[in-house]
Amino acid sequence: MPAATARTGFRNDYSEGAHPRLFAALAAASAEQNGGYGLDRHSARAAQMIRRECACAHAEVHLLVGGTQTNLAAIGAFLRPHQAVIAAACGHIATHETGAIEATGHKVLTVDAADGRLSPERIAPLLAEHGNEHMVQPRLLYVSNTTELGTIYRKRELQALRAFCDAHGLWLFLDGARIGSALTAEGNDLSLADVAALTDAFYIGGTKNGALLGEALVIVNPALQADFRYLLKQRGALLAKGMVLGAQFAALFEDGLFYELAAHANRMAARLREGLAAAGAQFASDSPTNQLFVTLPADAVEALAQRYDFERWQLLADGRWVIRFVTSWATQAVAVDALCRDFAALSYPGAQRAAG
Amino acid sequence: MPAATARTGFRNDYSEGAHPRLFAALAAASAEQNGGYGLDRHSARAAQMIRRECACAHAEVHLLVGGTQTNLAAIGAFLRPHQAVIAAACGHIATHETGAIEATGHKVLTVDAADGRLSPERIAPLLAEHGNEHMVQPRLLYVSNTTELGTIYRKRELQALRAFCDAHGLWLFLDGARIGSALTAEGNDLSLADVAALTDAFYIGGTKNGALLGEALVIVNPALQADFRYLLKQRGALLAKGMVLGAQFAALFEDGLFYELAAHANRMAARLREGLAAAGAQFASDSPTNQLFVTLPADAVEALAQRYDFERWQLLADGRWVIRFVTSWATQAVAVDALCRDFAALSYPGAQRAAG
Amino acid sequence: MPAATARTGFRNDYSEGAHPRLFAALAAASAEQNGGYGLDRHSARAAQMIRRECACAHAEVHLLVGGTQTNLAAIGAFLRPHQAVIAAACGHIATHETGAIEATGHKVLTVDAADGRLSPERIAPLLAEHGNEHMVQPRLLYVSNTTELGTIYRKRELQALRAFCDAHGLWLFLDGARIGSALTAEGNDLSLADVAALTDAFYIGGTKNGALLGEALVIVNPALQADFRYLLKQRGALLAKGMVLGAQFAALFEDGLFYELAAHANRMAARLREGLAAAGAQFASDSPTNQLFVTLPADAVEALAQRYDFERWQLLADGRWVIRFVTSWATQAVAVDALCRDFAALSYPGAQRAAG
Amino acid sequence: MPAATARTGFRNDYSEGAHPRLFAALAAASAEQNGGYGLDRHSARAAQMIRRECACAHAEVHLLVGGTQTNLAAIGAFLRPHQAVIAAACGHIATHETGAIEATGHKVLTVDAADGRLSPERIAPLLAEHGNEHMVQPRLLYVSNTTELGTIYRKRELQALRAFCDAHGLWLFLDGARIGSALTAEGNDLSLADVAALTDAFYIGGTKNGALLGEALVIVNPALQADFRYLLKQRGALLAKGMVLGAQFAALFEDGLFYELAAHANRMAARLREGLAAAGAQFASDSPTNQLFVTLPADAVEALAQRYDFERWQLLADGRWVIRFVTSWATQAVAVDALCRDFAALSYPGAQRAAG
Repeated sequence: MPAATARTGFRNDYSEGAHPRLFAALAAASAEQNGGYGLDRHSARAAQMIRRECACAHAEVHLLVGGTQTNLAAIGAFLRPHQAVIAAACGHIATHETGAIEATGHKVLTVDAADGRLSPERIAPLLAEHGNEHMVQPRLLYVSNTTELGTIYRKRELQALRAFCDAHGLWLFLDGARIGSALTAEGNDLSLADVAALTDAFYIGGTKNGALLGEALVIVNPALQADFRYLLKQRGALLAKGMVLGAQFAALFEDGLFYELAAHANRMAARLREGLAAAGAQFASDSPTNQLFVTLPADAVEALAQRYDFERWQLLADGRWVIRFVTSWATQAVAVDALCRDFAALSYPGAQRAAG
Repeated sequence: MPAATARTGFRNDYSEGAHPRLFAALAAASAEQNGGYGLDRHSARAAQMIRRECACAHAEVHLLVGGTQTNLAAIGAFLRPHQAVIAAACGHIATHETGAIEATGHKVLTVDAADGRLSPERIAPLLAEHGNEHMVQPRLLYVSNTTELGTIYRKRELQALRAFCDAHGLWLFLDGARIGSALTAEGNDLSLADVAALTDAFYIGGTKNGALLGEALVIVNPALQADFRYLLKQRGALLAKGMVLGAQFAALFEDGLFYELAAHANRMAARLREGLAAAGAQFASDSPTNQLFVTLPADAVEALAQRYDFERWQLLADGRWVIRFVTSWATQAVAVDALCRDFAALSYPGAQRAAG
Repeated sequence: MPAATARTGFRNDYSEGAHPRLFAALAAASAEQNGGYGLDRHSARAAQMIRRECACAHAEVHLLVGGTQTNLAAIGAFLRPHQAVIAAACGHIATHETGAIEATGHKVLTVDAADGRLSPERIAPLLAEHGNEHMVQPRLLYVSNTTELGTIYRKRELQALRAFCDAHGLWLFLDGARIGSALTAEGNDLSLADVAALTDAFYIGGTKNGALLGEALVIVNPALQADFRYLLKQRGALLAKGMVLGAQFAALFEDGLFYELAAHANRMAARLREGLAAAGAQFASDSPTNQLFVTLPADAVEALAQRYDFERWQLLADGRWVIRFVTSWATQAVAVDALCRDFAALSYPGAQRAAG
Repeated sequence: MPAATARTGFRNDYSEGAHPRLFAALAAASAEQNGGYGLDRHSARAAQMIRRECACAHAEVHLLVGGTQTNLAAIGAFLRPHQAVIAAACGHIATHETGAIEATGHKVLTVDAADGRLSPERIAPLLAEHGNEHMVQPRLLYVSNTTELGTIYRKRELQALRAFCDAHGLWLFLDGARIGSALTAEGNDLSLADVAALTDAFYIGGTKNGALLGEALVIVNPALQADFRYLLKQRGALLAKGMVLGAQFAALFEDGLFYELAAHANRMAARLREGLAAAGAQFASDSPTNQLFVTLPADAVEALAQRYDFERWQLLADGRWVIRFVTSWATQAVAVDALCRDFAALSYPGAQRAAG
């Protein structure tokens, strides 16, 4: 890998490419001849590793290119035409996928979830409203871990959702685009095996955790497994050189690199959180993972944007912004520290009060 | 690149990974921070190179992951719900994409084309049958170059299709998954600039010509350009780390590597064609490109399959098979020669007659 | 028409069949030979009458069977795949059409509207959030008149929505399943000509205003007219014996029967409103049209349901119900008066307070 | 019913309205209050009659408005996204429904069938070609009785298709838009009970056999019954005043009127066939039902079109036309005889040869 260029970006966790060990695995596989469309030995090996990590020998593992593709392929496959998916109002499928689920014909029903997390209490009223053929039939619950706001589910919370889904005839699908960050977060008590035991299907994000691209969809429930490769092909989601995905996921899981990379991102986020907090930052979400949300006056946002790259997440009614900082497997402590220093130097009312 | 492993496969042109120069470009880009979802400098540079190569400054270039994805995203975007696409009966969208176009809501109307190529004469009767609201409205003509059978279009043929499309209110879309092989084939008189001038949109295949993955969709007609990134996102076709595509396409086009790789594949195919012809092979298609189709008795197919990997393309009514050999940017002459020798050693009635 | 059977139902305005004059027109047309699929003289005549009534010679008029069918055919035809429709959260397409719009591939974006009516102020924030290709593109505003809660739009309100749509590149589509009731309501200042002048498309409900079945879709904007019969056929919405619709709409519009029937329903609703108000009823919506919404304790609802048919619209958090009474072209004053008497005889806390 | 107007049309069997007994039943039901959306006593009674006629107590019966609507609602409900329907190349869903099936996301695979009828022999090769996830998965066989060319299935033929479907994992769906004509045709040996026993679902056409509108979908296989009313609502196929359909179907089946009307149409067709044959007509299809296909020079077609209404079905390569005459429940013998006389008076080469 060439010398690192300046890494002053905190916009997201897909700005950088692949970790060098993934790159090396990819180079080796690239020099071979491999079967096409996911029927190669690297994909088979990665699937086997993931099944073992999930302690679920009967799970089907499919390697896809990206998150929106995975969501639409899975949800579109799991539902009959009149059935709908329930998501948090801020859920990725409800907001930032350009209607990808609706384009497969299904309504996304939303439930308000201030911190991104769903619970039976929040979902029950929606189910109560849907009881006859004049309305869609809720059939699948979509949750994300980490959530859109960087929060995580605890084991008892996921168990409660599982019990609720069982009681109401819902599939439980977990979007794990950032599941690495979730599973290595402070306070987490879930493992991949737990997630496999508690959901019908979920995916493990590679794109946001050190891979060039790739999400591993794990279909746990046999009722959802039939003919899934047909669905992938139909959605343009069977990669011709599937070994590109297989080699990377095998590298991520053969010796715990997946967790190492996520833990690094979380450590960098914790360092940033401490630094920002010391500087009086107001956090808009209680995130223990690699996304931090900070409320800031527009002036301060402008000033900060001169030197750092980050996302303006939401414009509040009072004119302030919620901005988002994201760390990744490649974030460097020196960059975090610089951001903390420069943030502390911002002068704005809220900062003064907090620091005062 | 590591030492080559045994390359005895002729199954397809996506068995091997990326050419080393693409890999190097990818490694360099991977070590940077880049904008996401195709808004990176590598993708911008690749698009600029492609526009220049196409002599079409106003073309929009989008980099996608694979061919089925490109076909469904483009065709699904270009048509209104009641409109249909016309393709050869053997066309990829009509047969080998698991109904991907129909899944976007559109009918694929087919026309028989013995050698994979369409012409106004073949299409006109179909248009004559479709004239009122009880039938779909043909609106787009889909052609492939190379075709499914390895044949190519000459400039006058594409001009005739263009004129026909203009006369009948059809868009002309060209699937160029193997356009590199087409443009470097013996007998070709088309350039990318010609293709851009004669079609409304087309794509340039990277997957089958030396890239890990990637197709460059060129939308020439401004009427088809609006909001296309929305359509990509909706279909799961906006790659988060778009630089993976951008860096590879920039490497392919910065100094003619795209043509070099395709020309190599064609040379290997020519060498194979000569060797097989000398051994009395019967070709099922007159292909000047990197796919060769040979008719062979089942016994001979079995014997050959002991040592070589190839596709059984079609079972004929008389019990014989049409098999397909494909060469790629990575095919080695020594492997071709071995195949020719072993083919010549096959003993079967047709071979004897041909050799006799 | 045979002697009236007991009419104690207030469940909806589609419980009874057709007005006798429509029946007579239908019988006459039924005895002829007519062209199929809407190409008959009755449909042509009805369309001509409606164009005249709308003072819009260039409008296209299509006669469809029902409201959901009309909404999905029109909205599905007007939008490109990445585009979305905006509706009130209580809008029919958002709630009671079983995801019919999503089944055509489009997201329904919703805006809270306590009384069922939308305004620029309510919609503007939603537009502000939708600005790039990661979210759907709002392209059409759907309003209903009467709304789901029986309220109506005034001319200046519809003008404000028109101006807003023009400023933001939105089509304006009006669901007029109960437009007869709206246009004859106390306080209304709109005419069909106004609606045609202010919208891009709308429909005139026959089903709920004296027809056996039928909605007349009026496409005012020429940009939305092309090929619409193809879209109808594709959705199963071209009725083979289109004269069934044509004869009824011609009967409705040849001498103002459409308005007479709606005015009757409104008069019956007004009579009921007065009676209920006198009995201390609490209205959940300020409806001047043929739907009345009353909040009532569960016990009282049970008691009333012994003798009358009505809809339990919404269960409130405090255990009370909002129930709905609907009058129609066929509602009889004697039935209204009986309901008022029996309602007044209900003994419940709210009633006592109101009456006290 | 008013005095009959001149009935010189042989264009189709949906030119006339409803038989007087259906009209009377409809008028009676129209004067009542009835439950909405198919939950009325007339629909329940019609369903019960149809179940009895089908000797299938567990069948679900749904009343829909039209044929295309029924085909798209049923097929769209029965298939998963990657599955396809097989039809004759001339099948209604393959040609004359404007891509309605594709608009629900499914491919229609076609098989040539010169006389409109499918057989295991014709379908087997198509199944043999479809064996992996790169192609759609055939899952449902669509047949029509009568076929598009007026031919009918014998019991042993339908039994053979049933056995074939069982052996290959296909549902069997029968489009019975003209099943009345089929079941009363000379040579027929099927009953509704046979059809119910041999198919998974089918429908009984009312539109083309004396009703104003209406098709009765019979879902025999319990595996296909779940939630079907949701699917109907989503497709806009739940008629608000469902009694319009229920009253008509009850009238058709309460005393055999369904068969009487179809038999009348067949008798008129037989009379026409004899007359035309005597005049030397060349029939393009061996139809024992209410559609007759005759090959005629263009001049003769023009001459005939001066006085009669019929469909120009297909333009042959030699410049001649295949035209179609259709009789209905309302066709009068005097009109048939007039057509026969005028046809006999045509002077054209084929006629002379045939008559000579």
